[in-house]
Amino acid sequence: MKAMSPTRTVYWRDARVCMIDQRLLPERESTLVLDDVASLAEAIRDMAVRGAPAIGATAAYGLALGAQGSTASTAAGLRADLAIDAETLLAARPTASNLAWALRRVLGRLDAEIAAGETEPTALRTLALAEAERIADEDLATNRRMGAHGAALLPERCTVIHHCNTGALATVDYGTALGVIRAAHEQGKRIRVLVDETRPRLQGARLTTWELARLGVPQTLIVDGAAGYYLQRGEVDAVLVGADRIAANGDVANKVGTYPLAVVARENGVPVYVVAPSSTIDLGCPSGAEIPIELRDPTEVTEIAGRRIPPAGVTAANPAFDLTPARYISAIVTEAGVLRPPFEAGLRAAVEAAASPVPAS
Amino acid sequence: MKAMSPTRTVYWRDARVCMIDQRLLPERESTLVLDDVASLAEAIRDMAVRGAPAIGATAAYGLALGAQGSTASTAAGLRADLAIDAETLLAARPTASNLAWALRRVLGRLDAEIAAGETEPTALRTLALAEAERIADEDLATNRRMGAHGAALLPERCTVIHHCNTGALATVDYGTALGVIRAAHEQGKRIRVLVDETRPRLQGARLTTWELARLGVPQTLIVDGAAGYYLQRGEVDAVLVGADRIAANGDVANKVGTYPLAVVARENGVPVYVVAPSSTIDLGCPSGAEIPIELRDPTEVTEIAGRRIPPAGVTAANPAFDLTPARYISAIVTEAGVLRPPFEAGLRAAVEAAASPVPAS
Repeated sequence: MKAMSPTRTVYWRDARVCMIDQRLLPERESTLVLDDVASLAEAIRDMAVRGAPAIGATAAYGLALGAQGSTASTAAGLRADLAIDAETLLAARPTASNLAWALRRVLGRLDAEIAAGETEPTALRTLALAEAERIADEDLATNRRMGAHGAALLPERCTVIHHCNTGALATVDYGTALGVIRAAHEQGKRIRVLVDETRPRLQGARLTTWELARLGVPQTLIVDGAAGYYLQRGEVDAVLVGADRIAANGDVANKVGTYPLAVVARENGVPVYVVAPSSTIDLGCPSGAEIPIELRDPTEVTEIAGRRIPPAGVTAANPAFDLTPARYISAIVTEAGVLRPPFEAGLRAAVEAAASPVPAS
Repeated sequence: MKAMSPTRTVYWRDARVCMIDQRLLPERESTLVLDDVASLAEAIRDMAVRGAPAIGATAAYGLALGAQGSTASTAAGLRADLAIDAETLLAARPTASNLAWALRRVLGRLDAEIAAGETEPTALRTLALAEAERIADEDLATNRRMGAHGAALLPERCTVIHHCNTGALATVDYGTALGVIRAAHEQGKRIRVLVDETRPRLQGARLTTWELARLGVPQTLIVDGAAGYYLQRGEVDAVLVGADRIAANGDVANKVGTYPLAVVARENGVPVYVVAPSSTIDLGCPSGAEIPIELRDPTEVTEIAGRRIPPAGVTAANPAFDLTPARYISAIVTEAGVLRPPFEAGLRAAVEAAASPVPAS
């Protein structure tokens, strides 16, 4: 197993899962160290870690924690304990499909080993961790590939709008849509980013600005409602977003505000690029209509920086994601390459390519 | 002259201009009392008072203050002092046309009187205040008429999205788009409002919620980026917004975020109604391209509730308004009635109707 870099968003160290606590950024860089599944699920639910790929890797490590913590003396007993842990983790966030994908992958690996005759719980514990580490390592490699594919779509000199956070913090490292920005910057392209602040949790204002500043990428923070102003003025070359789940037809669930951004971009002839690994594709959802949209605590809307904004008694609604129909999306960038509409066949092929050649450890 | 109600957003009392300080709402209801033009201009600039019609009435009262404070002993001297005061007031906010309109109206009234032979500065001081009071009184009457016209557009049971604040606080009293909501509610229509919080200044979250709560209108606060979620789901019957300036062709400058809201509404077949008095129409601007868009202090974006959000060194851009091309607007509601596209002739007629029968005091 490779030594994990502490610069990763989430990593395994000394039998615990470590992650940078994103709730405290950019004011404080603090590492959260967790050693049980319930705490890990709560960290996901409360968004100490967020971003679909990061959630996936974290959940995989969660199963490694669960395997380690299980007192089962048989393989079947361990597997039963992990089924319960997987339920706990799956319930933490409903929209991102990477979470379910990562759980399926770790459990599938164990099931294959059990089917092949493995009876030692200790061997399965080791295997669960190894699969989680593999998922984390692959995420980084996947992001670098998407970065290269996506950067090729951008002109030498460009302004892009970016929504939410899709950077190293939203993944194990490097990023998805922000990885494309990073790759373009590393290639010497003169890229400037209009950063949507992304209410209510302000992932753009807090996290994306923090990452872009460290990378030295020129950026300007704007409120979400101002994106249309810049699109209309012809100052934007592309919209770059990630995805929490991509349906079989190319409909995309992503952070709330993505859908209006995509509609206004198309209205102004600006391409919309969705950048997400194949683990985000859910062929089980024929269209976006089948994707569950998480409704989060209304206090994320009514309170900002700990202060209540509207008068007492006023209630809020807080859908965390919205659906962008495939017709507003110019391209979907996965590790397998750039998909153009219609997306069905390409998405299926990307999932199959990712699933087929899993080498045994 | 009628006694002014202290419940008005802005009013004249004891030789001073009084206004509710909107920067402190909803936490504190505090009245700002101003007795010189410079302080009044600063109150407009810093948005202690905001909303195009309220700014217009406030600026008119500003000229009454200026007339009162002038030590000129001739009519010409007073008029020269007021020309300087008008420059100061005009520079406070560049986008709303009601400000310039109100100044023109007061000065035009004085000029007519001077042309007719008036030489007494004292008489002109009285006249300036009388014209400001008339503007304030008319604003209320105008809003009630718009409320009636607009309410007729709404079904008996409906959900509307409202952006920014267009209520009693944005006017002298009653409101424009929010006046339509109020009129529908008073007529017994079952109207529910999705309140855009309206970043960066949170006029929706702070002011519109406060007004709707007092009126007893059912409301739900949402982040600006969530409007698309509800429009897409078919849960919205109309979008209601005000305007800061309407060009001769029907293009509308309004609070930033209006343009994407209108685009997404049209995309979903939801009507967009702009509600604004004829004083908002600027026939001198052929289209929205000629309307100046105010760029405000970036700290309105980077700081929320007194707390800095992004890391040090990150800059923001803060366009306060955006332009909604006429093609996205289903109807413009003025005091003269409901205008449907194409808007040119109707807008011209509305301005002419408002200008023609000004009875002498």
